[in-house]
Amino acid sequence: MTITIKKYCCLLTTTFTLFFTILGCSTYAQQKNTRDAQMIKRIYDEMLTQGEAYEKLRYLCKNIGGRLSGSPQAAAAVTWGQQLMEAYGFDTVFLQEVMVPHWVRGEKEVAHIVNSRKHGKIEVNITALGNAVGTGPEGLLGQVIEVKNFKELMALGREKVAGKIVFFNRPMDQTQIQTGAAYGLAGDQRRNGPSQAAKYGAIGTIVRSLSTAFDDYPHTGTTVYADDLPKIPAIAISTNDADLLSDLLKEDPALQFYFETHCEMLPDVLSYNVVGELTGATYPDEYIVVGAHLDSWDLAEGAHDDGAGVVQSIEVLRTFKALGYQPRHSIRAVLYMNEENGLAGGRQYAVQAAKKNEKHIAAIESDIGGFTPRGFGLEMNEASLQKIQSWAPLLQPYDLHKLEAGESGADISPLKAQGTALIGLSVDTQRYFDMHHSALDVFEIVNRRELLLGSAAMASLVYLIDQYGLPYPGNGKQTE
Amino acid sequence: MTITIKKYCCLLTTTFTLFFTILGCSTYAQQKNTRDAQMIKRIYDEMLTQGEAYEKLRYLCKNIGGRLSGSPQAAAAVTWGQQLMEAYGFDTVFLQEVMVPHWVRGEKEVAHIVNSRKHGKIEVNITALGNAVGTGPEGLLGQVIEVKNFKELMALGREKVAGKIVFFNRPMDQTQIQTGAAYGLAGDQRRNGPSQAAKYGAIGTIVRSLSTAFDDYPHTGTTVYADDLPKIPAIAISTNDADLLSDLLKEDPALQFYFETHCEMLPDVLSYNVVGELTGATYPDEYIVVGAHLDSWDLAEGAHDDGAGVVQSIEVLRTFKALGYQPRHSIRAVLYMNEENGLAGGRQYAVQAAKKNEKHIAAIESDIGGFTPRGFGLEMNEASLQKIQSWAPLLQPYDLHKLEAGESGADISPLKAQGTALIGLSVDTQRYFDMHHSALDVFEIVNRRELLLGSAAMASLVYLIDQYGLPYPGNGKQTE
Repeated sequence: MTITIKKYCCLLTTTFTLFFTILGCSTYAQQKNTRDAQMIKRIYDEMLTQGEAYEKLRYLCKNIGGRLSGSPQAAAAVTWGQQLMEAYGFDTVFLQEVMVPHWVRGEKEVAHIVNSRKHGKIEVNITALGNAVGTGPEGLLGQVIEVKNFKELMALGREKVAGKIVFFNRPMDQTQIQTGAAYGLAGDQRRNGPSQAAKYGAIGTIVRSLSTAFDDYPHTGTTVYADDLPKIPAIAISTNDADLLSDLLKEDPALQFYFETHCEMLPDVLSYNVVGELTGATYPDEYIVVGAHLDSWDLAEGAHDDGAGVVQSIEVLRTFKALGYQPRHSIRAVLYMNEENGLAGGRQYAVQAAKKNEKHIAAIESDIGGFTPRGFGLEMNEASLQKIQSWAPLLQPYDLHKLEAGESGADISPLKAQGTALIGLSVDTQRYFDMHHSALDVFEIVNRRELLLGSAAMASLVYLIDQYGLPYPGNGKQTE
Repeated sequence: MTITIKKYCCLLTTTFTLFFTILGCSTYAQQKNTRDAQMIKRIYDEMLTQGEAYEKLRYLCKNIGGRLSGSPQAAAAVTWGQQLMEAYGFDTVFLQEVMVPHWVRGEKEVAHIVNSRKHGKIEVNITALGNAVGTGPEGLLGQVIEVKNFKELMALGREKVAGKIVFFNRPMDQTQIQTGAAYGLAGDQRRNGPSQAAKYGAIGTIVRSLSTAFDDYPHTGTTVYADDLPKIPAIAISTNDADLLSDLLKEDPALQFYFETHCEMLPDVLSYNVVGELTGATYPDEYIVVGAHLDSWDLAEGAHDDGAGVVQSIEVLRTFKALGYQPRHSIRAVLYMNEENGLAGGRQYAVQAAKKNEKHIAAIESDIGGFTPRGFGLEMNEASLQKIQSWAPLLQPYDLHKLEAGESGADISPLKAQGTALIGLSVDTQRYFDMHHSALDVFEIVNRRELLLGSAAMASLVYLIDQYGLPYPGNGKQTE
């Protein structure tokens, strides 16, 4: 009760203070507000009527296609990104060397349930997990033991697991409203499942595809082998076939499964991040970065993941130039290499930024698909968070309702060390994990307006940060 | 300044009042809040894991298909809807007779640009507008005059228009963030263009498809002939071909255009609204309606428009039954017939409700596609609006951020006369007008989770209205 009365007195003081502050500042604030609203409207209008991101994405998907690190397509994408940004006349365009893993899938995988009691041989849809070792042409045949999680695996122990193929079959939780949360909850099976299984003597691993859909498409993605355990072959199976296998195992726990994968890890190769820059007029040595990863999985065209983010990021700078906007800080579009199976590009960018003492006040990433934007995930100190949240009235007319503490993006995460405010474009992700890392991630499933709206959302936030800065913890002072 | 001080005193009083009110009510309010949050979570969990709307939509689209009023498919859809709701065991299921227009498209339309100077004959993609008269097998040949709006048409006058085909070519405004707003701004061309053109002696009308996309698909939709003007044939042309025609007209203003449509309006036929009900335990004579239209255009399967709304509405009642929820008010799923080219079903429902003195406290419609829901458009008195807005904290965890005064839905609009609170499910509409009324509106473009989330949003709001009522202006008192 005492506390409440104290609070009430505070309210009284605050109200008076606020009242006179508002009287003094309102005209100036209103002018700034109107100018900002106008600029944001110009950004949206430019992109929605003249935006080039969609056609650029078509080119990247259809003429280059899937571009896994180390592949000829990844090299072609680097050249494409560099030439495009040069053609747009950005102030600086450069490549940043980075050594990346070179994993190749080889021949298409095959798999079948060998001797189900009732049904005989049944072919199933699989894909090798990224970075996994292959079985080679001799394939792998074994009994299957199904588990839902590592706890069940541990309970079974070496006795029940050794010599078998472990089948991780915990579905993504459909009741999660944010599909990214469901992905997070199920992801350990793919990332760590093979090594966890190897710990108990398993000879191979089947992982239920991390997908929100029930269909026949397997979804790949990186697995991470522990250094001190045997590396065993690992595949993802489509959700339909995971259900089928699970059903058949109930009928016949002794059934056998065969799969053949031809993937292998080759020596690291030289690749590049691609960086384009509009140099700041007032603070040329302070950077705001907008970016995405240029590499993609090989099963499709990497349209949503992350071709969308790539063309959106380039579009931000193209739009500023088209509108004749002279930024105060240097603004960079960064196309990171190797997010999918290594993050070498993101790490290298942060290393180089630190080496050159480049102060990065903010970094925005778009890497959850070119869907309708809903706001931003904010990973930063409280003062920066509040500052961005104070811009809500400027962003809500564009259906950007979410300005919350949350995840940003993998590629920009290494910049956290220098105190950069990290921001993730937050989009409607209901469809994302239906096609993520599968053969379905092609240009045709990207919607032009949704893609452009995401780019406009990022450009609007970059503009506001460029105008008003963010409290940068690197030096403790407010950047303006 | 005086006003401000007065306001400040008000704030003081309000704060004290609020403070003691909160002390007294907080525990009860918290309990209700927790109970409501739990119920909403149960609704979402049930639908996202056991929801049947998606598979029911597959049946409606694939086994019945497009179902224009008066067609055999519309009759089949009526039977399907009735049988499904009976199979679900709703307390009451009945058909409501309604006479509907019976327009038939006949043979597929053909059209070409006849004698463009450079290119000769060019086939283009068209579709007859709904309710339009046809040209018959002899077709229609004429010079084309392009206008952007009725003002330009009027300025040209009879002298320049008579004997020609008027080409309305104003695109949907891409800069509108809400595509529905752009549709509204461009829609007069299709609805009233033919009669406006006829006023000046035109012999036919070509309307640029109301689409946000640039492609080869023509989009149909109703045109409304004025009673006192000649009815002239009217078609929509794909956006790509509209641009082509416009370009060719610049080269050769005298080019001719030929089209052939075989549509005609037949005598009205008997059809039905389909109504399913869970009868209220406390207020059986007070109704909350959730609905959508059962008819669709004939060019595709009416998947988003409005098969989605149909299966979502049925799913709301199925879920309440599955959860063992006993509603206090009677809750109805209403499948209206003939929204697309007449609204006879919506009108009839309101007429019957008035005749039987059925008090409808709220009506919710889903008719802008089965996309991710973002909230609700609220068309009601201020007290009801505020009451619904007070539930925002319960809805925001499900990404329902929009609770704003706005449009609701065509089918429920006739209930406005009895003071019913009208509510439209508000969804992400960026993709809607790419496929709306075109051959693209098929089951495959509906996403299962997006569809189910829309249904869960509606069920959650129905639940809250059922629990707490809405101020119903029919009798001035608060329904509880």
